[in-house]
Amino acid sequence: MAEGPSLADLGEWELIRRLGAFAPCGQFGDDAALLELAGKGAQGPGQTRLVVTTDVLVEGVHFSEATTDAGDVGWRCAAANLSDLAAMGCSEVLGLTVALVAPPSTPWPWVEGVYGGLKAVLDRYGGQLLGGDCSSGAQRLLAITALGRLESGAGMPVAGPIHRGDGRAGDQLLSSGPHGLSRLGLALLLGHASVEQLDLRRRAISAHRRPRPRLDAVPILAACRPPDRPWRVGGCDSSDGLAAAVAAVARASGCGALLERGALPMDPAMACLPEAEPWCLSGGEDFELVLALEPEWAYALVRQLPGASLIGELTLGSPGDVRWADSRELLGETHEGFCHFH
Amino acid sequence: MAEGPSLADLGEWELIRRLGAFAPCGQFGDDAALLELAGKGAQGPGQTRLVVTTDVLVEGVHFSEATTDAGDVGWRCAAANLSDLAAMGCSEVLGLTVALVAPPSTPWPWVEGVYGGLKAVLDRYGGQLLGGDCSSGAQRLLAITALGRLESGAGMPVAGPIHRGDGRAGDQLLSSGPHGLSRLGLALLLGHASVEQLDLRRRAISAHRRPRPRLDAVPILAACRPPDRPWRVGGCDSSDGLAAAVAAVARASGCGALLERGALPMDPAMACLPEAEPWCLSGGEDFELVLALEPEWAYALVRQLPGASLIGELTLGSPGDVRWADSRELLGETHEGFCHFH
Repeated sequence: MAEGPSLADLGEWELIRRLGAFAPCGQFGDDAALLELAGKGAQGPGQTRLVVTTDVLVEGVHFSEATTDAGDVGWRCAAANLSDLAAMGCSEVLGLTVALVAPPSTPWPWVEGVYGGLKAVLDRYGGQLLGGDCSSGAQRLLAITALGRLESGAGMPVAGPIHRGDGRAGDQLLSSGPHGLSRLGLALLLGHASVEQLDLRRRAISAHRRPRPRLDAVPILAACRPPDRPWRVGGCDSSDGLAAAVAAVARASGCGALLERGALPMDPAMACLPEAEPWCLSGGEDFELVLALEPEWAYALVRQLPGASLIGELTLGSPGDVRWADSRELLGETHEGFCHFH
Repeated sequence: MAEGPSLADLGEWELIRRLGAFAPCGQFGDDAALLELAGKGAQGPGQTRLVVTTDVLVEGVHFSEATTDAGDVGWRCAAANLSDLAAMGCSEVLGLTVALVAPPSTPWPWVEGVYGGLKAVLDRYGGQLLGGDCSSGAQRLLAITALGRLESGAGMPVAGPIHRGDGRAGDQLLSSGPHGLSRLGLALLLGHASVEQLDLRRRAISAHRRPRPRLDAVPILAACRPPDRPWRVGGCDSSDGLAAAVAAVARASGCGALLERGALPMDPAMACLPEAEPWCLSGGEDFELVLALEPEWAYALVRQLPGASLIGELTLGSPGDVRWADSRELLGETHEGFCHFH
């Protein structure tokens, strides 16, 4: 075997950067890949634009039996993929394929539960199970590929692709919903936190076990576009955490970002917890959309999309720097997200 | 954890049968899934038909460092997926996504080699790397999803889908090329066999390390269709071995099959080896197409496709039974293929 740095030496971001060299330029910069299929006939502008994304969930890295039952494993893996579709501006799910690896001793009911969770996501958000493959292996894992289509339905406003790098200085930053609930849910399941409000507890555990991909936000985003403006939306999902999402959009757009400390998108019932701010910023697995929009478009979307809020803006600052708007202090390490190779 | 039979108790085929219940009826019966996208506009019959397939290769199950270097791992995993596209009648590769799992100690040059092998397949057969995901895990594995399109190119004859179950009694069985070379190559690499002819050795090792998906056969198949006949082609690829492929087509088509012992599709230089017949029948990983065609179509294809040969026919016998044409004896256990959960 050839020598060289190990994957742990590189870290996830350097690994992804190096792997991106094998793909068309810019392909690895977004949550999913966009594939434009020119029609073979005289189809005119109605060509098909596909969105494709793959996620892998490994037992012991991304889930454990202590906090995630089989149905939740299936749901979360499918939901994470569909969130990547939404983050590309896609609201129509075509389907997904599943590669399942598990030790031969794995009980069938666990596998049945996983597929039940996957199917529940498809039943709710659309699309079919498009086959897959299975193999024995040392640990349980799922690799899921989701396929979507960018065209909106008949009579719906046209949605274009969302790219991380399509933000501009002066854009408002917008979150489609609250952050930190999933991290609180994990802490509750692990017994590392306790909350007295049963309703908050229920919401937090549900956010962790059954996250909702925000496909619903895309048609509303499209409907809110000011009539005289071209399609231009910077954004990604917040699966790696809110601060990481803001940093990713800012960096890809060549901008800095300012966050309003008083406007952190947080479940109000969580605000009293000591960990509220760090969990909101970097708890991760929130699966909301973090968007950079011209102010007029952002204001319209906040009015139309329940739960959405303005959280800051893109600036002419150093690319990828995320600072507090009040103090201009850097938020610190925000751009690593989950680094699974350390 | 719920009790119940383990995956080893079920075996691969029963597992796949059970998982098929989560997909649309018939979806799991083929090498890949077919997705028909109705155009949203007035596109007429030129709708897009996508083909999607996923394969997973696990170190220690599907490959080992002893016989497969990193570039070959990437090549074989991509080639296996593209072979599934060809087995659905697809000759246009759109691209593939890659989920890579590896321990943190894995050297970067191994990963670079794998992606180099993947890229070499795409450079040769078309399509792009459409992103993916990576994670740490206990063992190295690759899960690859390939996307293709069924339409043939401008001026090319139209190819419809190939389904395992589209054969009929009276159809000729045809193999697109020789079988057994890959198994010989594996034996040579493991030191379990030796051959004196350097040319055969080279061909066998190449067949094992760098198998060729038969995307090239599809346009020729389409061009050979008798002008007055509708599209109807039964078939699959022979990744699980020739006999398993014949049995799969026969069973799905509700037919028996007769194989001509004197017409086994074998590299002539291999014929003298004692293992020639079993390796030809069930060595596996040959990645040829095994097709069931009306006789006139089959005769035309054998004339036009170099290396193709007639190997037998579908009959009114018991579904899935494969017998020798001369003795009418059953070939024995042919339908299990590789069963990775035992």
